[in-house]
Amino acid sequence: MTSISPSRRLRRTPFSDGVEAAGVSAYTIYNHMLLPTVFRSVEEDYRHLKEAVQIWDVAAERQVEVRGPDAAKLIQMLTPRDLRGMLPGQCYYMPVVDETGGMLNDPVVVKLAEDRWWISIADSDLLYWVKGVAYGYRLDVLVDEPDVSPLAVQGPKADDLMANVFGDSVRDIRFFRFGWYEFQGRDLAIARSGYSKQGGFEIYLEGGEIGMDLWNALMEAGRPYDVRAGCPNGIERIEGGLLSYGNDMTDDNTPHECGLGRFCNTATAVGCIGRDALLRVAKEGPVQQVRAIAIDAKTLPSCDRYWPLMAGEKRVGRVSSAAISPDFGCGVAVGMVRMTHWDEGTQLRVETTEGAYDAKVYEKFWI
Amino acid sequence: MTSISPSRRLRRTPFSDGVEAAGVSAYTIYNHMLLPTVFRSVEEDYRHLKEAVQIWDVAAERQVEVRGPDAAKLIQMLTPRDLRGMLPGQCYYMPVVDETGGMLNDPVVVKLAEDRWWISIADSDLLYWVKGVAYGYRLDVLVDEPDVSPLAVQGPKADDLMANVFGDSVRDIRFFRFGWYEFQGRDLAIARSGYSKQGGFEIYLEGGEIGMDLWNALMEAGRPYDVRAGCPNGIERIEGGLLSYGNDMTDDNTPHECGLGRFCNTATAVGCIGRDALLRVAKEGPVQQVRAIAIDAKTLPSCDRYWPLMAGEKRVGRVSSAAISPDFGCGVAVGMVRMTHWDEGTQLRVETTEGAYDAKVYEKFWI
Repeated sequence: MTSISPSRRLRRTPFSDGVEAAGVSAYTIYNHMLLPTVFRSVEEDYRHLKEAVQIWDVAAERQVEVRGPDAAKLIQMLTPRDLRGMLPGQCYYMPVVDETGGMLNDPVVVKLAEDRWWISIADSDLLYWVKGVAYGYRLDVLVDEPDVSPLAVQGPKADDLMANVFGDSVRDIRFFRFGWYEFQGRDLAIARSGYSKQGGFEIYLEGGEIGMDLWNALMEAGRPYDVRAGCPNGIERIEGGLLSYGNDMTDDNTPHECGLGRFCNTATAVGCIGRDALLRVAKEGPVQQVRAIAIDAKTLPSCDRYWPLMAGEKRVGRVSSAAISPDFGCGVAVGMVRMTHWDEGTQLRVETTEGAYDAKVYEKFWI
Repeated sequence: MTSISPSRRLRRTPFSDGVEAAGVSAYTIYNHMLLPTVFRSVEEDYRHLKEAVQIWDVAAERQVEVRGPDAAKLIQMLTPRDLRGMLPGQCYYMPVVDETGGMLNDPVVVKLAEDRWWISIADSDLLYWVKGVAYGYRLDVLVDEPDVSPLAVQGPKADDLMANVFGDSVRDIRFFRFGWYEFQGRDLAIARSGYSKQGGFEIYLEGGEIGMDLWNALMEAGRPYDVRAGCPNGIERIEGGLLSYGNDMTDDNTPHECGLGRFCNTATAVGCIGRDALLRVAKEGPVQQVRAIAIDAKTLPSCDRYWPLMAGEKRVGRVSSAAISPDFGCGVAVGMVRMTHWDEGTQLRVETTEGAYDAKVYEKFWI
């Protein structure tokens, strides 16, 4: 792997000192910010995540804050998901599309109040789109990136660790709900959410200056549970079918292609930008769609570009993320496959940068 | 330095194979794309850039293409620079600001025709802002990211190398002008521009599939001139006062603070978003501004965060980029200094992550 050149532009987080002390060995860049990707090894981190509990510096999930009388109207303009029933205290996964229905981001939106929302973004400057739309429509809102840095606690022992710090009531937070908890005299939103299938929480820290205090408190409280610094795991998230914006989908793709049709209520999402285009797609269905792809391989190179999925001589799709799964004993991958070849069990070949392998299409991911 | 984890999201370029074959040793991420930062060493690359000629993969300078009847109107909305006198064939450095006058990007805009422009962007998703504004204003334009990848030829021998490939007429291209040249039957815009003070060109390659052919042709033609693969150099660009968006300025800063007031014709840039805010700044002047900072040091750590500039116990600014200059025998840095301490010759202290050093304020950069 090649080195990354440090610069101010690749922003550190309130938890970077902790991440470095814990021996981070690789990063990616996400929203112009450092996001750890490996500590001991991807495989060792994976095993530990599934058995214990980890603290993740996911400050790179930046927030776009929308405040003011037109906040709810603006948020609904961004997405084909119908938000009318959403209550303060809820988090919704929300595809954001442009006027053609192409995906601009796939954030989680956090409703703090009717007139105050956080959009917890994937890797693109969604702030610019939201500001541009708000300005063009002369909406009565403030849109900015606040000093809010999520810290995730993920793994089967996350509840025990969190209860040690915030009290037993955190156990009662339901999935994709959040509550307010005190830390050092400050209120923090804590949600049951996170980019793994192992369960856990995301703590939205407002005010980076107490970042290391929070990190250290969690590390200390986690000792009985073998807590470690961790990060979103490249194997586990593919097994779980958690898509990655920029890897598995871009603004070329509609939510329907990404298998996110269940988050689209385009008919009733009145005001949504791109609604006309998506009504058409919703009616006719996509011609390609995300699928789980099992690869018959013992080792795989890094998936640093699209790998063609071939049916004989014909290209029928591509793989965008892949890894060898220790638990499933094969290559696990995220593919985008044309409808002619997307049925469960279809046999294909995947052309990696280090040879071609047999591949099989599945409708469901592994966990 | 820490490793970078490869993924599709950190996009390769049409020239990545050449960059790797040439032995790239570090990258940064810029517009979600790989941008080389070091080949042999920053110092060795620096010396070579000043004496010979280098080929730079700057495909990460992505384009926002704006086409259609309202294209010129939209481009003028983006910037306080008055574009009325701009002709096809010209490139303008163009601060882009939001409604408060805060900088969103500092691109070079390329006028291909009255109704067709490329905005050659620094590191932020300006596409989203331009699309949002165009949508909000219902402008009759197409806005997208085309398959255009700049390749730079920089250094004192750039003219000779380029003449070998494209003919002697490239020598006549004036600064920040471009002409059309043929390569493999395709028309390429070639501009006299680039992110160094050593002179040279940027070739806008449309269609990535011939990227390596172009790379190889330039490498071959450059043999007599000791051509090497290179990249924007962290020392040379500071010596030359070339600012870096995300390092030396963010959306917190106005163009005036960044010393870009000479590119603002706010009074006559009718239609510019943020005009009201900037008229106020233009009248009163900024309270802090970019300055060259000489640091009395023999070695410096990587400037991976703002370093406070202190006058006694008082913080009066910050350094955002810094390096040791072999040619000037001191630390060279980009600072933002409050008006109370920005006069030429002011003595300050800079607090790096590895100790404090004497620092002196200069109004002009080194080259």
